Amino acid sequence: MNRIKATISYDGTNFAGYQIQPGIRTVQQEIDKALTKIHKGENMISYASGRTDAGVHANGQVIHFDTPFNLPLDRWKKALNVLLPTDIRINKVESVDQDFHARYSATGKTYRYKWSYSEVHSPFERNFSVPLGTRKPNVEKMREAAMHLMGTHDFSSFCSTKTATSNKVRTVKLLTLEEQDEFLVMTINGDGFLYNMVRTIAGVLIDVGVGRKAPSDVLSILEKKDRKTAGKTLSAQGLYLENVEYKSYDNPS
Amino acid sequence: MNRIKATISYDGTNFAGYQIQPGIRTVQQEIDKALTKIHKGENMISYASGRTDAGVHANGQVIHFDTPFNLPLDRWKKALNVLLPTDIRINKVESVDQDFHARYSATGKTYRYKWSYSEVHSPFERNFSVPLGTRKPNVEKMREAAMHLMGTHDFSSFCSTKTATSNKVRTVKLLTLEEQDEFLVMTINGDGFLYNMVRTIAGVLIDVGVGRKAPSDVLSILEKKDRKTAGKTLSAQGLYLENVEYKSYDNPS
Repeated sequence: MNRIKATISYDGTNFAGYQIQPGIRTVQQEIDKALTKIHKGENMISYASGRTDAGVHANGQVIHFDTPFNLPLDRWKKALNVLLPTDIRINKVESVDQDFHARYSATGKTYRYKWSYSEVHSPFERNFSVPLGTRKPNVEKMREAAMHLMGTHDFSSFCSTKTATSNKVRTVKLLTLEEQDEFLVMTINGDGFLYNMVRTIAGVLIDVGVGRKAPSDVLSILEKKDRKTAGKTLSAQGLYLENVEYKSYDNPS
Repeated sequence: MNRIKATISYDGTNFAGYQIQPGIRTVQQEIDKALTKIHKGENMISYASGRTDAGVHANGQVIHFDTPFNLPLDRWKKALNVLLPTDIRINKVESVDQDFHARYSATGKTYRYKWSYSEVHSPFERNFSVPLGTRKPNVEKMREAAMHLMGTHDFSSFCSTKTATSNKVRTVKLLTLEEQDEFLVMTINGDGFLYNMVRTIAGVLIDVGVGRKAPSDVLSILEKKDRKTAGKTLSAQGLYLENVEYKSYDNPS
């Protein structure tokens, strides 16, 4: 068997999320269907670095699958892109060892959250960013709050109450806010993220930006370890999974 | 009665074109529905500078409508944007004289056609540009061909055989090709365009770019006045109505 790693992008708009669920359109369903077709009907299953919710996008999701086939890597890419719907694209295909696992080998992830400053939210942006309307946030205050979230913390206040994992300690290595043209972009990198963590952090930072919270409030929210203290989870269409890190691949020696 | 001019943008992806047709979703249908709602059920009709086909986008389509209401212009914009679906946005609202007509007062239009050079066509671009795949066109040759199309010509070879208008003479004032990041963009400005004219011109220019036609072939295509000589009409998702010109508004004296 050969293990194949693929880096993929998708427009999450028309998917009910990443993971296969009977009767609804998901990213995994489309990928497994394409793989199964390539394998002449043999039932194929792919594994991703993690799920994404309905409406969430990806520029750099990573998956792996096992195959008895020995195709050149470029052929995998072409064959999959021909069979997949155009809202999923395979950007890169690599051959990996059997001990590589898209989910368990991941050492870090980067997400982006994208807001629009435009007075009228462009119809071309409606699924790809979140309008701030007339609320022009104070980005400096948001950066101050972001500083408090960097490092290793118990992020219980910053994840969905539906989070299954008991260990809520995560390390945020990078959390930046940048203004690019008519957009405000939050970039967050860490060793792992709890369910809804990025969108909850984005919500708290915007609350700080528009003055509903002070930058230092973030400290007490962290301390309380109670989801109710953090405010709302922002909508999915602003969120992008940008990159998944793997030790041996990112730091080849 | 007050006549209102509105400049609008729309993502054409989920519309069966601009003009109202029973039983299918069109841009005009949504606009007239929103206007009718504002006018408490009074049946409202809007007039556009022209139709666009299914899948064609607009950044600067212009419409007008008559209303007995005397709302501040900003209220019109807000009310319509609240009622309209997010794939149509009102960017600007102006009060105009009764002799202004979105279609008949128009003195010129600008369209854009957008191709993508990306080896893998981004899922976020799938409805907004046309992939060139491995065909890297010679843009210099395309510009040479474009020069032949500028000026006043009979464009019979460059419009759909379904074109109703008998006079096929039009003036192209500007026809440029620019490379922007991973995109190739054709911009065309003229006094008016025949049905499918922009997409047919785009198709001929790409044919020249990839060597299927020589730049000078454009001259014989024009001469023959036969649609069959020009090649195929490119797909709708690359096409944008950018701007509509009106004499008195663009050159206020």
